[in-house]
Amino acid sequence: MFKKIKPTVLIAHDLLASYVQPGAVAVDATVGNGHDTLFLAQLVGQAGRVYGFDIQEEAVKKTAELLAQNGFTDTVRLFQAGHENLLDYVTEPVDAIVFNLGYLPGGDRNIVTGADSTTKAVRDGLALLKPGGIASLIVYTGHPGGPEEKEALEAFMQTLNKNEFCAARLDFLNRKNAPYLIIIEKSLV
Amino acid sequence: MFKKIKPTVLIAHDLLASYVQPGAVAVDATVGNGHDTLFLAQLVGQAGRVYGFDIQEEAVKKTAELLAQNGFTDTVRLFQAGHENLLDYVTEPVDAIVFNLGYLPGGDRNIVTGADSTTKAVRDGLALLKPGGIASLIVYTGHPGGPEEKEALEAFMQTLNKNEFCAARLDFLNRKNAPYLIIIEKSLV
Repeated sequence: MFKKIKPTVLIAHDLLASYVQPGAVAVDATVGNGHDTLFLAQLVGQAGRVYGFDIQEEAVKKTAELLAQNGFTDTVRLFQAGHENLLDYVTEPVDAIVFNLGYLPGGDRNIVTGADSTTKAVRDGLALLKPGGIASLIVYTGHPGGPEEKEALEAFMQTLNKNEFCAARLDFLNRKNAPYLIIIEKSLV
Repeated sequence: MFKKIKPTVLIAHDLLASYVQPGAVAVDATVGNGHDTLFLAQLVGQAGRVYGFDIQEEAVKKTAELLAQNGFTDTVRLFQAGHENLLDYVTEPVDAIVFNLGYLPGGDRNIVTGADSTTKAVRDGLALLKPGGIASLIVYTGHPGGPEEKEALEAFMQTLNKNEFCAARLDFLNRKNAPYLIIIEKSLV
C-alpha cells in the first residue's frame, strides 16, 4: 500500500486537470470504455468541446452510453475512426489530446493500437496542439506488439524539437509491464 | 518557454514538500552547495532534524555557511563523509533521503559520485526509510561515468520488491543528458 504514488491513469488525470480549463477543446484519440472522454467532458464543461475517436463500434457505443448517463450529450462528438485519421475530423487547435493505447479493456485483445498508426496519430495530434497545450499518452507494453509500439513512440519523441515540445516520461523501474505515462507539453512561444 | 513542466530539481522539491512534514527526519546524502539541505531544513523545521553528507570539504563548508545565513544551525548535522558510509552516522529511521548525483557545481568536475558507491548508498538509504518514506535521486548522465552510474542505479531499482517499494522514474525523452528524477516510496505496510 503506497501513500502518494498513484496508478498511472490517475496521475494522468491530475495532470490533465491542471491544463484543461472550462471552455477548452480536447481530443480523446482512443475512447475505449469512455472514462477519459467523460473526464475531459467534465473538465471542459458546457462551454468546451471534446472530440472522441475509436476504431471499434463497441467502444464508441459504450462511450456514448456513459456520456449520456452523465448528462454529456451536446459537448462531445464521437467518431468511429482510427486515431491515425483524426485530422480528417478535427480542424481546430486543441488544448489537450489524450491517448490510451493497447486494447479495449473487456474487448477483443487482438485489436490493439499499432506502432505505425499510433506514431502517426501522435504526430498529427501534436500538430493540433495550441501553445501551452498538453498531450498525454498511457502506454502498455505487456501485450503482443506493445514493446514495438513503445520503441516506435519513444524513438519519435526523441525527434521532437526541444524548443517546441517537452516530452516527459513517467515509468516504474520495478514494475515491468506496468502502464506508463508520456506527457508532451507544447511550448508557449 | 514551457508552462507547467518544471526543471527536475523543482519537481523533486515539490514532491519532497508533499512527503516531509514539520518534525520529520531527513537525510541529504550529497549536500553539494547546500540548496537541498536548506530546503529540507525548512521543511522539517525546528522540531525536525537533517543529516547532511558530502565527501568534499568545500561542499560541507559551503553548506554550513548557507545554513547559518538562513538561521539553521541547530537542526542540521553535517558530516564530511561519502554517502556510501551514511549508516555509520544515521541510526534512526528517516522520512526522506535525497541524492543529487554527479559533480559539485562550481567544484572539481573530476570528483563525481560513482556507480558502486552510489548503489550502496541508495541501498543503505532505503534501509533507513520509514514506511511511507521517500527517497529522491537526481541523476546526471552528461559527465564521464554518468551513463554507468545510471545503468547501475536502474539495474538496482529493478531488483526492489514491488510490494515494499515503488520506484518511479521521470525523465525527458527529447532532452538527452538532462538531469532526471528517480523517486522511491516505501510502502506503508
